[in-house]
Amino acid sequence: MSDRMDVVGIGNAIVDLLSRVDDDFLVKHHLIKGAMTLIEVKQAVSLYEDMGPAIEVSGGSAANTIAGLAALGLATGFIGKVAQDQLGEVFAHDISSLGVEFNTVPSEDREHTARSFVLITPDSKRTMNTYLGASHALGPDDVEAEFIQRASIVYLEGYLWDPPGAKKAFLKAMKLAHAAGNRVALTLSDSFCVERYRAEFRDLIKNQVDILFANEAEIISLTEAKSFAGAVSLMESQAEYVVLTRSEKGSVILNRGQQVAVPACPTEIEDTTGAGDLYAAGFLAGLAKERTAAACGRMGAICAAEVISHLGGRPGTGLLRYLEERLGRVT
Amino acid sequence: MSDRMDVVGIGNAIVDLLSRVDDDFLVKHHLIKGAMTLIEVKQAVSLYEDMGPAIEVSGGSAANTIAGLAALGLATGFIGKVAQDQLGEVFAHDISSLGVEFNTVPSEDREHTARSFVLITPDSKRTMNTYLGASHALGPDDVEAEFIQRASIVYLEGYLWDPPGAKKAFLKAMKLAHAAGNRVALTLSDSFCVERYRAEFRDLIKNQVDILFANEAEIISLTEAKSFAGAVSLMESQAEYVVLTRSEKGSVILNRGQQVAVPACPTEIEDTTGAGDLYAAGFLAGLAKERTAAACGRMGAICAAEVISHLGGRPGTGLLRYLEERLGRVT
Repeated sequence: MSDRMDVVGIGNAIVDLLSRVDDDFLVKHHLIKGAMTLIEVKQAVSLYEDMGPAIEVSGGSAANTIAGLAALGLATGFIGKVAQDQLGEVFAHDISSLGVEFNTVPSEDREHTARSFVLITPDSKRTMNTYLGASHALGPDDVEAEFIQRASIVYLEGYLWDPPGAKKAFLKAMKLAHAAGNRVALTLSDSFCVERYRAEFRDLIKNQVDILFANEAEIISLTEAKSFAGAVSLMESQAEYVVLTRSEKGSVILNRGQQVAVPACPTEIEDTTGAGDLYAAGFLAGLAKERTAAACGRMGAICAAEVISHLGGRPGTGLLRYLEERLGRVT
Repeated sequence: MSDRMDVVGIGNAIVDLLSRVDDDFLVKHHLIKGAMTLIEVKQAVSLYEDMGPAIEVSGGSAANTIAGLAALGLATGFIGKVAQDQLGEVFAHDISSLGVEFNTVPSEDREHTARSFVLITPDSKRTMNTYLGASHALGPDDVEAEFIQRASIVYLEGYLWDPPGAKKAFLKAMKLAHAAGNRVALTLSDSFCVERYRAEFRDLIKNQVDILFANEAEIISLTEAKSFAGAVSLMESQAEYVVLTRSEKGSVILNRGQQVAVPACPTEIEDTTGAGDLYAAGFLAGLAKERTAAACGRMGAICAAEVISHLGGRPGTGLLRYLEERLGRVT
């Protein structure tokens, strides 16, 4: 096949186990509220034993974004590594059934499919604890040149910088995309992730990223600025689009010397999982349709509102209608 | 341990895969809306391939009821067979983490843990397609005398009549409970299940069931009456409690010659999965607290309202508070 795709995402292939907990649970387990912490098998087992009942929903940051783009009707692909187990089947089913091209060969290691314990506190905030498992097996061989070349945008998550093979896959995809004249989008994923790789990310963004997504904590961590305003001024002209999300304070988009502020879309918040991922989906859908930066931001805000109004980081089946109702007809 | 338990449930140990579909999907797959259909592996694979993304939530009719009772603070146990796979771990985790005693040894067969494809149509009704898998391995050896004897009530689901070993386990548990002077509760599960075993169920209820739960379709199937009123009159004195649920029309309880009508508890309906199961939980919790039939019915109605107000057949963590707010303090 050589059909064009709008966006190919590369990311950790994760199934989320969502569970409601009290703030005390986070304290007891020394968890940093709102952050994503990588955990090993032993911690995963002990955390699961102590947790209440969970709901299993496919997740993964870039995967959520791609699911959102597919739900909006865009042509998409995804690259990510699951194991040959039931959670791997669940992940593969959920993304494929949206029409996303997903052909990454499952890992043959003993490691299980990655899972993230997503703990939702009474304030609807999510704290993530991720066991990467089979995601460690993702490598450059999983990135096929033809697949990347077909996509107008390759979308990468910062989390890929953690497993060494995934980082190589990330760099290969970036190179292939640029060589084919396509664009590279990156989401910084998490402020602690940025802290782990600050210098590398700074260099990468300046030289190889066309579209950058980051939230307030991430951009402050990246720039080491004292305030959001300070971070904004440091990010001017660092990429074609620098898209900064600020939860209920909306988002700010830097594009070719212009600065656009977009308000958040009001909604009842049930679970913030996937807010940034779905903002990126809406924004990239706007870019694919050649909308203005402001329109792209508005689309991002609406998609984020949809995903935080229900449990889980994947959009509901009605995402497109939800967007259309709030934006006017999207064509 | 010889601590008393309020209720021990025996049922199929199932993980539900919840997915929203259009009515056309049911038509295309020749599915009977609202019913539970048993499917084999081949059908399970083809149905899953055709379905959209799903959410995985522990289910099983009696298991949902026991989860509800545990959430209400009762001492409970569960007997049901999972496989040694990830969905089996999910089921075991979810029920154990509620404080339910669950020690059934997982099956060593090749069969996977049972799964039910729960298809939710736009009218919020659920249609279930269940692959029983490892549940077929449940047998009388899984029913330990001491475990049953500890429980004031043993709660059984009609679905157990399908796998031959489970039926034997069911009969053994019933005998043990009565020999120990404890009560037996049965839910008829599904009108098609009743149709498959009508004569056996009639005999069982008349002679060995103390508390019967059935919905309108099930009781009409059981009695072959022409109307609900006709079914009610045929069920007089068939068991100590005959509890008949009628969705938004509320419930009717027959108890020692008395007939009590209880209205439904109004709520926004998101997904009807687990409505009957949680009604039974509320009702049995009332019985454990020696409430009147009317009070038990009211508790059942409120618990049913909670579970249909969100996705999945298991109650949320706030079930007890939800009940208390609507009923006045439960002590």
